Amino acid sequence: MEIASDESIDVSTFEWPAGFYADAGHAGLKADANVDDFGWLVSKTPADAAGVYTTNQFQAAPTALTKQTINLAHQLQAVVMNSGNANSCTGVQGEHDAAVMQQAAADKLGIAANLVGVASTGVIGEVLPVDKITNGIAKLGLTKNDGVTKAVLTTDTHAKTITVKCLIDNQPVTISGFCKGSGMIHPNMATMLGFVTTDAVIAGDQLQHLLSTTVDQTFNQITVDGDTSTNDMVVVMANGQAGNQPLNADHEDYPTFVKAFKLVLSHLAKEIAGDGEGASKLVEVNVTGAYSDHEGQQVAKAIVGSNLVKAMIFGEDANWGRVMQAIGQTDAHVDLNGVGVAINGIQMVTNSLAADYSEEAVAATLKKNVVTIDVDLHAGTAAGTAWGCDLTYKYVQINASYRS
Amino acid sequence: MEIASDESIDVSTFEWPAGFYADAGHAGLKADANVDDFGWLVSKTPADAAGVYTTNQFQAAPTALTKQTINLAHQLQAVVMNSGNANSCTGVQGEHDAAVMQQAAADKLGIAANLVGVASTGVIGEVLPVDKITNGIAKLGLTKNDGVTKAVLTTDTHAKTITVKCLIDNQPVTISGFCKGSGMIHPNMATMLGFVTTDAVIAGDQLQHLLSTTVDQTFNQITVDGDTSTNDMVVVMANGQAGNQPLNADHEDYPTFVKAFKLVLSHLAKEIAGDGEGASKLVEVNVTGAYSDHEGQQVAKAIVGSNLVKAMIFGEDANWGRVMQAIGQTDAHVDLNGVGVAINGIQMVTNSLAADYSEEAVAATLKKNVVTIDVDLHAGTAAGTAWGCDLTYKYVQINASYRS
Repeated sequence: MEIASDESIDVSTFEWPAGFYADAGHAGLKADANVDDFGWLVSKTPADAAGVYTTNQFQAAPTALTKQTINLAHQLQAVVMNSGNANSCTGVQGEHDAAVMQQAAADKLGIAANLVGVASTGVIGEVLPVDKITNGIAKLGLTKNDGVTKAVLTTDTHAKTITVKCLIDNQPVTISGFCKGSGMIHPNMATMLGFVTTDAVIAGDQLQHLLSTTVDQTFNQITVDGDTSTNDMVVVMANGQAGNQPLNADHEDYPTFVKAFKLVLSHLAKEIAGDGEGASKLVEVNVTGAYSDHEGQQVAKAIVGSNLVKAMIFGEDANWGRVMQAIGQTDAHVDLNGVGVAINGIQMVTNSLAADYSEEAVAATLKKNVVTIDVDLHAGTAAGTAWGCDLTYKYVQINASYRS
Repeated sequence: MEIASDESIDVSTFEWPAGFYADAGHAGLKADANVDDFGWLVSKTPADAAGVYTTNQFQAAPTALTKQTINLAHQLQAVVMNSGNANSCTGVQGEHDAAVMQQAAADKLGIAANLVGVASTGVIGEVLPVDKITNGIAKLGLTKNDGVTKAVLTTDTHAKTITVKCLIDNQPVTISGFCKGSGMIHPNMATMLGFVTTDAVIAGDQLQHLLSTTVDQTFNQITVDGDTSTNDMVVVMANGQAGNQPLNADHEDYPTFVKAFKLVLSHLAKEIAGDGEGASKLVEVNVTGAYSDHEGQQVAKAIVGSNLVKAMIFGEDANWGRVMQAIGQTDAHVDLNGVGVAINGIQMVTNSLAADYSEEAVAATLKKNVVTIDVDLHAGTAAGTAWGCDLTYKYVQINASYRS
């Protein structure tokens, strides 16, 4: 767990911010009747909202509908979601089913359909059994339980949640997030769904700007397998129950809120990377000496995304040439004779040549569950970070039989 | 084996073209004394030559030296090569060692050093034990054996060779190629070394043009793991022993030669893809209905390079949504409601929706060793093809312990 260094920011146990409710249930999308497979997230009042969405050309129907809904007025009051079926590559039928799901939630809540977001994740290309979901929605309530954070999971091994509190106008503000991974994780969102709620007062356009900027440094810097899903999105709702002065660049506590918000997203991103399909280790790559932040991020992600680097980390084999190879594959500025590479603090490469390191010490450190690779490109003063995981037998196993 | 449809082109058992000799031996770079780890390829006279090289920024010393040598005058008389050590990320020492290797071969043959190419493959970042190689070169002879085609292998499971004969000016011309794979295989050459020899008369600049064009459609269209090596190159030598009229666009038999040349390169490329690290199946993706040939190639390679598609093929699981996801990840023109996908001839997707296929028939066809995916983007009349392999437990195993 990352500890916020700012004393005005606290990580606490998960809870919903003021005025947010949730619930979950089993609709029958997953075979096991003991596993919840749908749920919702509801604000007592319409909330300012923002979203970011997959760049995959085949955008799934629920993702497209939510984008369209948020773009109307940057307002949402609820999000209804399911796992077990992605409602993707389902054509006109899929668009219809997503709209039916949206309307059913709106009817149950007595609000307008254009205040309801929809999210689905699971197998692509199968028609959504939407009747099961509408039947389920009829039974959902407004509770403070966190069942929906589990109901949205697919191959994830555990729920991914965080609650951060900070002081804005000397009053407590809560930001809570949850998400699901854990394959098709790569640039531009991958099969991940992320939901962030806060009771802060912040206008929709300001929230959109903050979300887009922060996603570029967090969710877009993780990779599990280089594949980008059709369904990804991150949605944020701010219902204003905290009653602070509206947050924007002129508010003296805005930096605190930005920091707390980034902590929520980076925690969730790292949780996804560390729980990548079949992963046994979390890998963090920190690039310094980059020509620009963009290039620092690009190189960090190239390293963490290399199958050869990932397999080497699974094998606990310090074959640093693969890190060099991954750097060299990019078109980033690199001092070809000046690169440094350290693994868990042990310097392995200096001036692009093997450093004088102990094979035993390296072998020992690679047994850890977290592997940090620090790279100095010696080409500037900018930096970038990316997160991923190792490539394991289990990744292959999971993805060789995903539908079975 | 692809059969040339042109009656004037024949695939025959491997042999060196007229005026080419080779030899191989064990220099001590690999532990097993029964395995050859270096060798050479020699023409009786200086040959016109061409090359293509890795785009990785960390270009290994031997690759850089060979590029520099060929660029002098597009002439080569010999190539000396080794496996077991890539002489990459070895700095000034590496440049020195590559030059020593080049000079030793030149001295033994009594020719100028700038007529000798050098190639290395193996572990990155370790200093080349060049004395072992120079000692070995002293013992090489000029034979017609094919030992060098095996000596250059690393994790390949078998040698990859082909000989094609065609008629130019009604006289037989021979083109022979060999190469090594089999990890770090991706766009722009990957860890592959390819060597093509021919007794045809064709000028160096013409040969360079032909090579560059053909590599884009063959070697640059295979992918094993998305990683690009520091050492890749393909070198062609044409020694003119066949005595034909110089081949160029005005020669009436040039189309025949181009076809034979492409057959050599595409055969070797497919051999590399099918023998990718740990591969159990060769995957061929044919894209039609593309807006341009470039986009057809781009989409074909995106599909064949997707870890999720690769794992699905290993698992013999017809999860066609992953093919759609891989298409959608590109920025190619796509008719989002018009895409067709067939696997081994069984139509699985029509108009971007599930077709009416038999799960049993698909399950049966996926047991084959070759899986062909045909995709129609419905966005134009151009096409592209790419080759790869499945992602298996064995790939992970090999790369988790490459150095051990």
